Amino acid sequence: MREVAIIGVGMTKFGKHEETLLEMFGDAVEEALLDAKVSPKEIEAVFFGNCLGGFEEGQMNISPFGASVLGLKDIPTTRFECACATATVAIRYASLSVASGCHDIVLAGGTEKTLVMGTPFATRTFAMASDSRYEGFSGITFPGAFAMMAMLYSKQYGIPLKTLKERMAMIAVKNHRNGARNPKAHFRKEITIDDVYNSMMVADPLQLYDCCPFTDGASAVIITTLEKAKKLCPKPVVVAGTGQGSAGSLLDQKDLPRLRAREVAAREAYKQAGLTPKDIDVCELHDCFTIAEIIASEGLGFFDHGKGSEAVEKGETDIGGKIPINPSGGLKARGHPIGATGAAQVYTIVKQLRKEAGDFQVDGAKVGMVDTLGGDFSVVCNLILKRGW
Amino acid sequence: MREVAIIGVGMTKFGKHEETLLEMFGDAVEEALLDAKVSPKEIEAVFFGNCLGGFEEGQMNISPFGASVLGLKDIPTTRFECACATATVAIRYASLSVASGCHDIVLAGGTEKTLVMGTPFATRTFAMASDSRYEGFSGITFPGAFAMMAMLYSKQYGIPLKTLKERMAMIAVKNHRNGARNPKAHFRKEITIDDVYNSMMVADPLQLYDCCPFTDGASAVIITTLEKAKKLCPKPVVVAGTGQGSAGSLLDQKDLPRLRAREVAAREAYKQAGLTPKDIDVCELHDCFTIAEIIASEGLGFFDHGKGSEAVEKGETDIGGKIPINPSGGLKARGHPIGATGAAQVYTIVKQLRKEAGDFQVDGAKVGMVDTLGGDFSVVCNLILKRGW
Repeated sequence: MREVAIIGVGMTKFGKHEETLLEMFGDAVEEALLDAKVSPKEIEAVFFGNCLGGFEEGQMNISPFGASVLGLKDIPTTRFECACATATVAIRYASLSVASGCHDIVLAGGTEKTLVMGTPFATRTFAMASDSRYEGFSGITFPGAFAMMAMLYSKQYGIPLKTLKERMAMIAVKNHRNGARNPKAHFRKEITIDDVYNSMMVADPLQLYDCCPFTDGASAVIITTLEKAKKLCPKPVVVAGTGQGSAGSLLDQKDLPRLRAREVAAREAYKQAGLTPKDIDVCELHDCFTIAEIIASEGLGFFDHGKGSEAVEKGETDIGGKIPINPSGGLKARGHPIGATGAAQVYTIVKQLRKEAGDFQVDGAKVGMVDTLGGDFSVVCNLILKRGW
Repeated sequence: MREVAIIGVGMTKFGKHEETLLEMFGDAVEEALLDAKVSPKEIEAVFFGNCLGGFEEGQMNISPFGASVLGLKDIPTTRFECACATATVAIRYASLSVASGCHDIVLAGGTEKTLVMGTPFATRTFAMASDSRYEGFSGITFPGAFAMMAMLYSKQYGIPLKTLKERMAMIAVKNHRNGARNPKAHFRKEITIDDVYNSMMVADPLQLYDCCPFTDGASAVIITTLEKAKKLCPKPVVVAGTGQGSAGSLLDQKDLPRLRAREVAAREAYKQAGLTPKDIDVCELHDCFTIAEIIASEGLGFFDHGKGSEAVEKGETDIGGKIPINPSGGLKARGHPIGATGAAQVYTIVKQLRKEAGDFQVDGAKVGMVDTLGGDFSVVCNLILKRGW
């Protein structure tokens, strides 16, 4: 397998967009192409992420149109859909296609336009990422599933719910603080712990500010061989390891606060990269709810199981901390356009490693990790990125 | 790249099913695993095809549940969607994952349940595979697009419409004759040219029997390295070449009767296989409408452009002819469960090469081709399969 590197990244500002799915994608790709200094003609394949185009714009089979918008003709274009992990999976396959010698330069990314649906319909369509046979009609929603996870976490590790709630609120505060420094974030407003406590209850113990928003946006990544990358740009970012894991419905999950799919995915990514959690300098992970950030920080091996919330209280996940988590603001503040989220996480890590993250830069970040969770725990995709210079 | 082979195939009977998407998929996979004589535990990744699960069963993110139904835990599972070419694309990526050394044994396939939607809603959701920005709302439907193609074909090649219509009807008759011999076909009823002429007009010149049906069904394929395949089964079928091409909306198509996406895809597949159209002994191609079979037979290089319909009249595409096309009955009679169709085409070719096709066997078939078209001409995926023994 050949070594693979990212040479260009782009993303729209996340938030409310009037542009269409493909217009947003075009904007993100244009930025990525300019960043990589390659012309559209050089792109050999498109790995396209989108979850709900059928419901958002009556558009299935979106990948060829995504390519044609950029004047990319004839080349293989494929739509990937793995719920919230969609774009990360697309980038993983794009990387494998280059690693294997199948292609030399490819484009991967995603686009999503959830706000056009309005909250009730968006909630219903998002819920289709859970197991429709057993979950939806029994009344389990995503906030409900993560609320149960929080309750179970509190009980399993003997952390009083009051303490856990306060630490979860600290995550919301941290991610909003980070998002306020990120010009592309959906929410650029700092909040306080009291704001979290005073927000609407969604699913006990999760309040509104424990939940990430619906968001519109697109993001894109240009990938080539490390050999070629070194000739094309001064700061290629190596895709050092990738991992992907799966699990069935909630019924199949034996130990909810420890997600098998993540452990499998992370293990594979670390193995491929020849690295351990201690080597990671910065991480963008899947904080769809504040409890999800705690669970992920443990699953990726940054903290022992049951210790993730304590680490938040100690500031270890702050931008200046031991392992800065979600310096972009995460799903919570940068926003969560599902099929585009993974590529936005990659965008952030690439900017961090290149020291181009501006006000939310993590000093001296050389190795970064991306973690994206799809559905209620059924898909996890991890990428480990490192400096290639 | 390693040589890759198919060691097991399975499919449900196509037609109306009471089973769910995942139950059908489970049935197809069970047959494929038994055929391959491998246990579910040996499967390292799932490449899952489905187009409209969100509309059919409120199920997005279906791939992890597809794996868990089979007791497959933890492994990477990915949903692919490229309209009607969905399963073919999934099989192409599955093949690449084995060729590249990423995996040793993988499962690919698809499932679709269109009849549950009823014809009006199924028509509307299928139409989402065209370019939603320019086509749907201007009144162009798939039957309309293929009808225009037939009109243009008649004009471009100077074939009177009456003659073309008769030859198209001959394709319907041939494919129904073939389907009648295929125990897994949706329609097992022979028809006459008069039946076609007496059927309802759908979009002039296409009548009802020029159109393939909506169908429920699932199909699956087990893929491994040729080296491993030779140890596991007496008749491994080699994936000798794959190709995938794309195009934008109808507006971008310069010469409708010659689809660029197909020419690109087929050229790549032939190149990889080191073969030419003359080497193909049997072909399953995308006859969503009778005119589509003519166009495809030319695009794949079996006949000169403008000569495909004449070849039908001469019987050259019959089971005993020069190049038997759609011996399974094709989309027209075997049926067209969109996300499963490509895997069913592969199923047929594998059975043909192994001499296990029973009443629709093509004598001495050693090399076969699969052709699947997605949307109104925006995605084409081709596979060339040959005997590996």
